Amino acid sequence: MENYQVGDLVYVKTKDTQYRGIVMPSLEEDMLVIKMENGYNVGISKERIVSIEKIDRGETPRYKKVGITPKRREDLKNISILSTGGTVASRVDYNTGAVHPAFTAEDLISTFPELLEIGNISARPLMNILSENVLPLHWKRIAEEIKKEVDRGAEGVVITHGTDTMHYTAAALSFMLDTNIPVVLVGAQRSSDRPSSDAPLNLISAVIAASEPIKGVYVVMHGESGDTFTYLHEGVKVRKCHTSRRDAFRSINTIPLAKIYPTSGRIEYLRDVDRLEGEDPKVEINTNLEEKVALIKIYPGIDGEIINYYIDRGYRGILLEGTGLGHAPEAIFPNIRYALDSGLLVAMASQCINGRVNMNVYSNGRKLLELGVIPCEDMHPEVALVKMMYLLGNYPLEEAKRLLTVNLKGEIKKSTRFDCY
Amino acid sequence: MENYQVGDLVYVKTKDTQYRGIVMPSLEEDMLVIKMENGYNVGISKERIVSIEKIDRGETPRYKKVGITPKRREDLKNISILSTGGTVASRVDYNTGAVHPAFTAEDLISTFPELLEIGNISARPLMNILSENVLPLHWKRIAEEIKKEVDRGAEGVVITHGTDTMHYTAAALSFMLDTNIPVVLVGAQRSSDRPSSDAPLNLISAVIAASEPIKGVYVVMHGESGDTFTYLHEGVKVRKCHTSRRDAFRSINTIPLAKIYPTSGRIEYLRDVDRLEGEDPKVEINTNLEEKVALIKIYPGIDGEIINYYIDRGYRGILLEGTGLGHAPEAIFPNIRYALDSGLLVAMASQCINGRVNMNVYSNGRKLLELGVIPCEDMHPEVALVKMMYLLGNYPLEEAKRLLTVNLKGEIKKSTRFDCY
Repeated sequence: MENYQVGDLVYVKTKDTQYRGIVMPSLEEDMLVIKMENGYNVGISKERIVSIEKIDRGETPRYKKVGITPKRREDLKNISILSTGGTVASRVDYNTGAVHPAFTAEDLISTFPELLEIGNISARPLMNILSENVLPLHWKRIAEEIKKEVDRGAEGVVITHGTDTMHYTAAALSFMLDTNIPVVLVGAQRSSDRPSSDAPLNLISAVIAASEPIKGVYVVMHGESGDTFTYLHEGVKVRKCHTSRRDAFRSINTIPLAKIYPTSGRIEYLRDVDRLEGEDPKVEINTNLEEKVALIKIYPGIDGEIINYYIDRGYRGILLEGTGLGHAPEAIFPNIRYALDSGLLVAMASQCINGRVNMNVYSNGRKLLELGVIPCEDMHPEVALVKMMYLLGNYPLEEAKRLLTVNLKGEIKKSTRFDCY
Repeated sequence: MENYQVGDLVYVKTKDTQYRGIVMPSLEEDMLVIKMENGYNVGISKERIVSIEKIDRGETPRYKKVGITPKRREDLKNISILSTGGTVASRVDYNTGAVHPAFTAEDLISTFPELLEIGNISARPLMNILSENVLPLHWKRIAEEIKKEVDRGAEGVVITHGTDTMHYTAAALSFMLDTNIPVVLVGAQRSSDRPSSDAPLNLISAVIAASEPIKGVYVVMHGESGDTFTYLHEGVKVRKCHTSRRDAFRSINTIPLAKIYPTSGRIEYLRDVDRLEGEDPKVEINTNLEEKVALIKIYPGIDGEIINYYIDRGYRGILLEGTGLGHAPEAIFPNIRYALDSGLLVAMASQCINGRVNMNVYSNGRKLLELGVIPCEDMHPEVALVKMMYLLGNYPLEEAKRLLTVNLKGEIKKSTRFDCY
């Protein structure tokens, strides 16, 4: 019955029904996966199959299995890929239709041998978790492993990551790392064994970016819903803004740094990027984080006692995700005052997401400033939260307050751009 | 010294400095406000003025004071404007530069007599609060006052409102009102005594919308940063997405209903709108709300005990603003289970803001569904929160759960549009 191979057009009969489509690679021995004409994949348990008729011989499968330690090329940079899990390194369970993390970094290279034309790739798995389960302790581990890679000669590092919290991790690494090489986080919105997956182009783009003479922490994801280009985003100015689109990630309050055309390998810079050439790759890490920082999103009728709850639990910082230019209901001012009197760092970002906090315009904001609330400028809430964790983990309160409004890693832009809303 | 009037070009000397500009209307007797060539207004205490030289006589001021009860025109609809406060009805305190709520609805009509060409306008102030201080009890009061206006013959109602929480109020009114006339919320991002104010065009557009044969609750705000057109948004599909731009409000997961060109009075519908003609205006209100509903935004490292806190405080609903397609860290699953076991309604919206919650794709979402978490479809978090308050205020738990995923007022769209991200 196994008279077919990946890529063949087949006609499959089961006890109940029939399917016509192209044979896809399957990770489960007992499942046949075919892509139907409507574009959907279907997984058929081999037990259920009565007959398989080969209608047409398929092309050679696009990706061949290759070894992962090919000969080193002097003209290419050493790029390390560290996988952490998520859709970019996941597969569909065709029994249930759910997506599970599965591929290791080695699998990725086997699946996308084009990567070996861009860099001297080494790859290893760090962890295998969906990004909704990523914790600050994982940020620390990723930072430590990046350092190991650089110490071993990596000139660029790619981190494959689930998209749900990739922007939090990117912000954390931005503050924790001091490096002169590129560290590029990359994810995917469709798992890499789906024909519509964005994983190949995103991953290839990430390796292109990691080979560039730039430094710092970046995120690479699709730039539009097609497969034309990807964007290189600053790690401290990017956010997942759509649940499902391939171009879910957007730069906030700035434009992306570059467009990457993965099929041609071209990279088009859209604004100045921190560049550093001719130095030995290095990275210093500071993994001190204060995890007792809470994010509270403001809404009409919110109970201010929630602030007291965090004070009582020993929290050291509270980020208010306020309304508009950075406001909160006056009803919770006594709680905010109590938090400040208790020695907490209380800061303000906006739930508008776009734009800059400006607490000088309205009386509400002025009163909050007078209380001692720190305005987070044009940082979106997720970045402000992570920066507070970093500052409170490393500095005394007053210095943390001061540094929160100082640009450290590109997270605060002096002027607001109006072409990026 | 008072040899000048509003509109004149003057040269003002004070003890310290000098100014050249156009005399603007001032609400404080002891302040002279002039608009300088750079576009900024400056307030000068008359005590400080040494001399004022009139350089050029200005044009007649654009807006004349008019009475607010002009003769009723049979060809126009009866439109009630109710003011609640906010920037659209605010003025700058030139002593401090801060903005305070000040204008009443009557002031608005005096300032914008064009309104009287669009409808038979009556106006009265309801309250005078900045929208960051608006509470569910204010939503109820606004609903009750809208009913009073309709009972008195209003055929369209405009609510002027601060922008910070205008979308929460719009959602609340959408659920609380059952009406066959338009109720239009309108705000402004620049106070109405600033030359750059968006208040006039927004307010005129709102009255245009309130005169249309449409029904339901809407929001009208600038459609771009210029003064060309405004957008008519569905009250349940709109959100403040920028801290400061005039076009801060955006329709989420749908396009706006219409473009309004306030200078010509033209309205261009972009999709189908609920229309009803030839019936007597009516409104039924249901102001039952369960205020003990909490919004919790998920982030890496969030302490699940916060859920227990709300359970212990007698909360009846928790909206999780999860990551991606609707996920939460597995570490807090026991707390979520405890909330569900305690009889709370626990629902899931996405902090991506755009897109639809789909908890069938990944194992994390599936487990949450199995626990009993209700997915909020394509409702953005603010609307989902308000809908939970409404449902839990009116229905037993199981019916509230069921209705949360049923479209009641346009808040859930069956298909996701891809032209509105």
